Amino acid sequence: MTLPSSLDELIEALRCLPGVGPKSAQRMAYHLLQRDRRGADRLASALHRALDTLRRCARCNTFTEDEVCDRCASPKRDPSLLCVVEMPVDLNTMEQTHAFNGLYYVLLGRLSPLDGIGPKELAFERLLARATDGVVKEVILATNFTNEGEATAHYLSEMLHARGVKVSRIARGLPVGGEIEYTDAATVAQALIERRDY
Amino acid sequence: MTLPSSLDELIEALRCLPGVGPKSAQRMAYHLLQRDRRGADRLASALHRALDTLRRCARCNTFTEDEVCDRCASPKRDPSLLCVVEMPVDLNTMEQTHAFNGLYYVLLGRLSPLDGIGPKELAFERLLARATDGVVKEVILATNFTNEGEATAHYLSEMLHARGVKVSRIARGLPVGGEIEYTDAATVAQALIERRDY
Repeated sequence: MTLPSSLDELIEALRCLPGVGPKSAQRMAYHLLQRDRRGADRLASALHRALDTLRRCARCNTFTEDEVCDRCASPKRDPSLLCVVEMPVDLNTMEQTHAFNGLYYVLLGRLSPLDGIGPKELAFERLLARATDGVVKEVILATNFTNEGEATAHYLSEMLHARGVKVSRIARGLPVGGEIEYTDAATVAQALIERRDY
Repeated sequence: MTLPSSLDELIEALRCLPGVGPKSAQRMAYHLLQRDRRGADRLASALHRALDTLRRCARCNTFTEDEVCDRCASPKRDPSLLCVVEMPVDLNTMEQTHAFNGLYYVLLGRLSPLDGIGPKELAFERLLARATDGVVKEVILATNFTNEGEATAHYLSEMLHARGVKVSRIARGLPVGGEIEYTDAATVAQALIERRDY
């Protein structure tokens, strides 16, 4: 008296989604079958289409349907500024700020020796070639402020400095609207150390 | 400088899943494209297959690939006991107890006048016909103990009693392993009222 196999397969397949365990997968499967068959059909087609059409931009590694993404191909962006981020999703967040008009390079990861991810796995030599192509004047490191993101930024800065490339790191400090009373000590300390002339 | 359209469509399509907002949909899309393309492909195929092959059991309303589900067709189940549940997922939970060997009827909802769901929308006459077919000896109401589930059980019990059908309701009380100190007063009160001879 088990579930029909196609229902069972659907529940199992839904577990490939991050954060979805057996209970949520079951709830999702029933929801789709009972309440949103059109949505399920659209999702299946969107998955197939995305797998078929999306590939890596040859210049920045983000997802695109063309050889080079719109951003890298745009004459309106400043190619002398190169912002290095860990993931495509970080790039999206940076873009939402409308505060940056340069180009990007997506590492697709971060240094993580314990997981066997080193400079070779992240193809740092490709980034180095890009940064020393004569067009790029400054590399802005925008990896996360986690231990691994910091280690990655440190490694990259050493590597790029050795080639005479100008390197900067995005600032740490209090968030906009932040109150000192409610900010952790490490962040306040960093905000003090990285204080700016006013 | 927006996202490629097939990526955008995928993120949008993932939002048909219950509990998935724009941020999680984005995270899911990137996860699938970067880390689990095989899973994404399997999910797309499983969705299409489930939509193609699954339909309602003609007897109990649960999902099946055949005209009548395995359970309803089984000679090992006791057809004189009919358990009424709100949703297919409730049926699964009941089955996992291994405490019931009768058959089921899935309402596919609950009475909810504010949402325009009345006895007609839930096709109560179909259940009535089933309960009075001469085979069923007892109807066990296993709708939820929410306001709507209780109202549904009450309505069904009146309707079935009027036709002389024996009706029962699953018990309320403390959960297995439950401690009185940590149980809400309403549940303890109900456990007192529905106490059994010992």
